[in-house]
Amino acid sequence: MAANTEIRTGSPADHSGVQFFEGVEKLLEIWFTSTEDGSDKQRDLRNIPRQKWENLLKIVRCEIISFCQNDQVDAYVLSESSMFVSKRRLILKTCGTTTPLQCLEPLLSLVEQYTGFDEVEDVFYSRKNYKRPELQISPHQAFEEEVALLDTFFEDGEAYCLGSVDTDCWYLYTLNKEKCSQTKSDPDQTLEILMTHLDSEVMSIFTRDVCSSAAEATVKSGIEKLIPNMVIDDFLFEPCGYSMNGVMKSGCYMTIHITPEPDFSYVSFESNIPQASYNEVICRVLDTFKPGKFVVTVFANKESVAIDTPKELDQADKLSFGGDWLCHDVQYCRFKNYDLTCAFYSKFPS
Amino acid sequence: MAANTEIRTGSPADHSGVQFFEGVEKLLEIWFTSTEDGSDKQRDLRNIPRQKWENLLKIVRCEIISFCQNDQVDAYVLSESSMFVSKRRLILKTCGTTTPLQCLEPLLSLVEQYTGFDEVEDVFYSRKNYKRPELQISPHQAFEEEVALLDTFFEDGEAYCLGSVDTDCWYLYTLNKEKCSQTKSDPDQTLEILMTHLDSEVMSIFTRDVCSSAAEATVKSGIEKLIPNMVIDDFLFEPCGYSMNGVMKSGCYMTIHITPEPDFSYVSFESNIPQASYNEVICRVLDTFKPGKFVVTVFANKESVAIDTPKELDQADKLSFGGDWLCHDVQYCRFKNYDLTCAFYSKFPS
Repeated sequence: MAANTEIRTGSPADHSGVQFFEGVEKLLEIWFTSTEDGSDKQRDLRNIPRQKWENLLKIVRCEIISFCQNDQVDAYVLSESSMFVSKRRLILKTCGTTTPLQCLEPLLSLVEQYTGFDEVEDVFYSRKNYKRPELQISPHQAFEEEVALLDTFFEDGEAYCLGSVDTDCWYLYTLNKEKCSQTKSDPDQTLEILMTHLDSEVMSIFTRDVCSSAAEATVKSGIEKLIPNMVIDDFLFEPCGYSMNGVMKSGCYMTIHITPEPDFSYVSFESNIPQASYNEVICRVLDTFKPGKFVVTVFANKESVAIDTPKELDQADKLSFGGDWLCHDVQYCRFKNYDLTCAFYSKFPS
Repeated sequence: MAANTEIRTGSPADHSGVQFFEGVEKLLEIWFTSTEDGSDKQRDLRNIPRQKWENLLKIVRCEIISFCQNDQVDAYVLSESSMFVSKRRLILKTCGTTTPLQCLEPLLSLVEQYTGFDEVEDVFYSRKNYKRPELQISPHQAFEEEVALLDTFFEDGEAYCLGSVDTDCWYLYTLNKEKCSQTKSDPDQTLEILMTHLDSEVMSIFTRDVCSSAAEATVKSGIEKLIPNMVIDDFLFEPCGYSMNGVMKSGCYMTIHITPEPDFSYVSFESNIPQASYNEVICRVLDTFKPGKFVVTVFANKESVAIDTPKELDQADKLSFGGDWLCHDVQYCRFKNYDLTCAFYSKFPS
């Protein structure tokens, strides 16, 4: 997501005078639980007051620019990407030179103070390799530094680098511990598609030159048709850049962030819709944005209807998303609670 | 493999006076081919004279201490592990503070000068994380440094870190390029089991206190029964440590290297025997050495009868090698020419 001018000051213009924007997001997802008996009804991350979230996001170096909600989830569009808060799950996804891991300590304090949760059940911190890591702010310049900080907060944390080290790769930190047997996990699944080298005509839709409103860009690009029945909260930045959150009554979400500049175009798509196969959704996303390269990640736990989708993706010869994609490598991981596949593709040379 | 005293000088005694030995090997496997027509018969890595290998191994900081051969393969026991030379495949596996990547340039010159091969078809450089990386010699202190050097020799090289970054992990550098369609690949498969925290009674077999000869240790430990029909060349070091190469008429090999000291016990098992399932071999190896922790890697290409074994291992819930092993994580990778599974286990707490 390309933010507006004053937010972009963190990324100085390079020697050629082009102002760079790092579209690649840091994605932090934390699930909370309680070790104590008693009514679970009052325990809710949404008990944290709005002002407290705003203070927290200052530490992350971003701010709330739009908000929508339903019974299941509060969805915030941020100056740099998105935040989703539901009963016991927080998703904070921020791009640019934001510093989401700097908010861990105050976040855990807020949760303790306002929500009644006393334990972190699971953590997922992930990101693609940056295009320009040297522009990031500590601890985000290197994955090792991020892991060192995470390790000060969590036991049983493990760090992974999927894909080709230091080139096209995707980093993940997660708690690889057995769930307590008494607590049954909620079904959970996440599909993410991180795209680069995108079609310039498609990208032009997400500029103020071509569209006068976010709604216009949402329709014109076909984003509104990607997943039906989403209530959409979208934002078109000045002079370019686009963010959207979609939420369903079920609590399912989708979120898309677009950095359209040709020199560093980047689009991320993420959703937790439960599906037995993600092949069609992936094809629709690729048809919509026309990337030159992309990485797909699919997480699913044993309780999810999507439990076989990581394996499906792993056998992607059969799928291949329309036929003209070259799969560079695919890694399938079985963790204690989740299965994961991470696969790297590029357009077949024509 | 714990080498004899003068070879161990690379690893100084620590503050407690215990001399450390790094059992973890660097494993370099290179396949050569020719782009030119003409008789393939004269092309053979075994045309390189013995004296040239000895000079090359000086650069690696090890030497030949035993040798056996058959029509298919020359097998060398080294002061630090092993070397196997067949028609077009070189395997150089060295432990301690050896520097196998320093020999790449002279190796490629020798191959050009003596063998008629003019192209590297594939490269696999792999190793487990060291116990004490700070004792290594450049470029082997960090995987990034090893990759940087490899990248100066090979195009299309990609680097992977499987398992948990910087803790229990296994590094791999390989050429992830499509094979030319005109050359059909030889069937190929490699099973490796890298074990730590081994049973002290088993380890004591590999000391001069308990066994007076390598042959005695080979029988007493059960190594001779691991894979039938191997011609065995074994070596028992002074005061402790063990290495063996086994070769079959078919050209298949096995190799085992043992560092028995309780503070840093390490055993590696490797073989390229083609099997449709490695479950029984893995169980026999675990029964023989009784590790507390181990990592298994299986490579197989499409031409191999073992092509389904990486998937089998990936579904290791069904296998679990006797039932009391905890699988920490397992990663299954599809590369262009090979499938690979890498899985980390530890003894279930009793």
